[in-house]
Amino acid sequence: MAQTTPNHTQTVSGWAAHDSSGTITPYVFKRRHEITGLITKVGSDVSKFKIGDRVGVGCLAASCLKCDFCKQEEENYCDEIQLTYNGIFWDGSITYGGYSKMLVADHRFVVKVPDSLPMDAAAPLLCAGITVYSPFKDHNLLESPGKRIGIVGLGGLGHVAIKFGKAFGHHVTVISTSPSKEKEAKERLGADDFIISTDPEQMKSKFRTLDFILDTVSAHHSLGPTLELLKKKGTLMLVGAPDKPLDLPAFPMIFGKRSVKGSMTGSMKETQEMLDVCAKHNIRCDIEVVKTDQINEALDRLARNDVKYRFVIDIAGKP
Amino acid sequence: MAQTTPNHTQTVSGWAAHDSSGTITPYVFKRRHEITGLITKVGSDVSKFKIGDRVGVGCLAASCLKCDFCKQEEENYCDEIQLTYNGIFWDGSITYGGYSKMLVADHRFVVKVPDSLPMDAAAPLLCAGITVYSPFKDHNLLESPGKRIGIVGLGGLGHVAIKFGKAFGHHVTVISTSPSKEKEAKERLGADDFIISTDPEQMKSKFRTLDFILDTVSAHHSLGPTLELLKKKGTLMLVGAPDKPLDLPAFPMIFGKRSVKGSMTGSMKETQEMLDVCAKHNIRCDIEVVKTDQINEALDRLARNDVKYRFVIDIAGKP
Repeated sequence: MAQTTPNHTQTVSGWAAHDSSGTITPYVFKRRHEITGLITKVGSDVSKFKIGDRVGVGCLAASCLKCDFCKQEEENYCDEIQLTYNGIFWDGSITYGGYSKMLVADHRFVVKVPDSLPMDAAAPLLCAGITVYSPFKDHNLLESPGKRIGIVGLGGLGHVAIKFGKAFGHHVTVISTSPSKEKEAKERLGADDFIISTDPEQMKSKFRTLDFILDTVSAHHSLGPTLELLKKKGTLMLVGAPDKPLDLPAFPMIFGKRSVKGSMTGSMKETQEMLDVCAKHNIRCDIEVVKTDQINEALDRLARNDVKYRFVIDIAGKP
Repeated sequence: MAQTTPNHTQTVSGWAAHDSSGTITPYVFKRRHEITGLITKVGSDVSKFKIGDRVGVGCLAASCLKCDFCKQEEENYCDEIQLTYNGIFWDGSITYGGYSKMLVADHRFVVKVPDSLPMDAAAPLLCAGITVYSPFKDHNLLESPGKRIGIVGLGGLGHVAIKFGKAFGHHVTVISTSPSKEKEAKERLGADDFIISTDPEQMKSKFRTLDFILDTVSAHHSLGPTLELLKKKGTLMLVGAPDKPLDLPAFPMIFGKRSVKGSMTGSMKETQEMLDVCAKHNIRCDIEVVKTDQINEALDRLARNDVKYRFVIDIAGKP
């Protein structure tokens, strides 16, 4: 598995699954990328960062830097985008993600973590946070308070979306399949309303009331009942990605002139902006920190959806 | 079946199906609405029209005139919209459509047919024409030539969409399941390209090349292969309305930041504008005119898709 490429000059201790059992054990390899940490070394041409800076690396490891998307600071839509994990890099090496003590990243794909944000709670903002922030920005919801927003699904993405929605002054309705999440959504996270998507009466009470809906669910579902919650000309933004195609009935789309739109993470510029907004509004991911000897237990719990709302591995600490 | 309402002051000879056999026979009833014809009588408060004017009535019979949509001349999205056919009017009467010698219409829902447009070929523009014109306008495609447009389905809507696409200076690709339509699409209707949606190689040759796609198909299908034809940030506009939900895969939506949007006919203002644009560019529906004694035969052929591309019933002529 060892990679030999010009950019892989650092040997690092990490944690990885070595076979299909999925069990994570210590692993020494050569690597590039991830997540939040302190700068220990800076390239000679880099002026933006210095040793000791608090920084983060998100989903993006590299892009072509030449296409229209890259030139317009939308490198998240570059055709040659390289992800930080589960990717095959241009040089044929594997991008291993962030389960390790060190990583090497291109300065263009590194953001500064504002002083007021804790390193652990900031880390998942670099994926969950930017994934829900970008649609809010795309839909001009940052500076236009008073809209009625729906958030479908209350998990890693949904809980941050509620926080953004409230910070930007909107009325937030959570649409969920789990009645048990109502108290949490309203009392702790600040949602204004909570409805059960499988209850036709509750859904009907919100028919044609919402301006914008963010759908964070990654399980298969029909968009029909959700579309009916939108006002005419409303937009449903998809950020969850089920394997199986979603059901899209044409009638609520056509009669309501509604839109369904996709969105994938955000650009590096947006990611920095999002972290600064989080610092300003005191927004962070709700996390549970685990030590390296708890990774397998955490993965088991993750498979059972037993986390509120993201695990963060404390690589720097002692096991 | 006779209706007694204040607005139904005129008795008229028409043609209708009286039972579920669907056979159309002469029918005398009281009525309101449809399609192209000459003004024979004008209300005392109406100044826009005079006797003898060449006019048309489309899908819309009435709207509330008070809501935001009505006030912004988008009455096609008014919640209380009344359609010209198959509708139950506010007064409980049935809106019977246009198979008759006369109709009464509110002047707000009547448009002028430009002199250069024949009455017969103009009639279906009031439905098929406006349904495809409105998305072109919505997407700013009237004054921005050189875009790459896809038209899914070559029928009543699709053939007019090709004509608009070419009139507005775009490159038009037809996406169809019927290889037999290629010659017609390219040689007679002016399409630049024609690809078969069930042929993966042909579809692949157009991957990520189109700016905008108009989907006119009213049979069930997956939007996945079509979405892959769109450039990133491209829009797929739905105007066909299958009964069964469409398949919408999330990945091409999310990775490509693509949009799917619905659109239903157009406003009265747009409908007049569309007719004027058709006059300017010499655009009309391709039609086959039938006499009243050929209606049942025409309906049989319609059920077999055997028409290029719309039947128009010549009510004024002798059978």
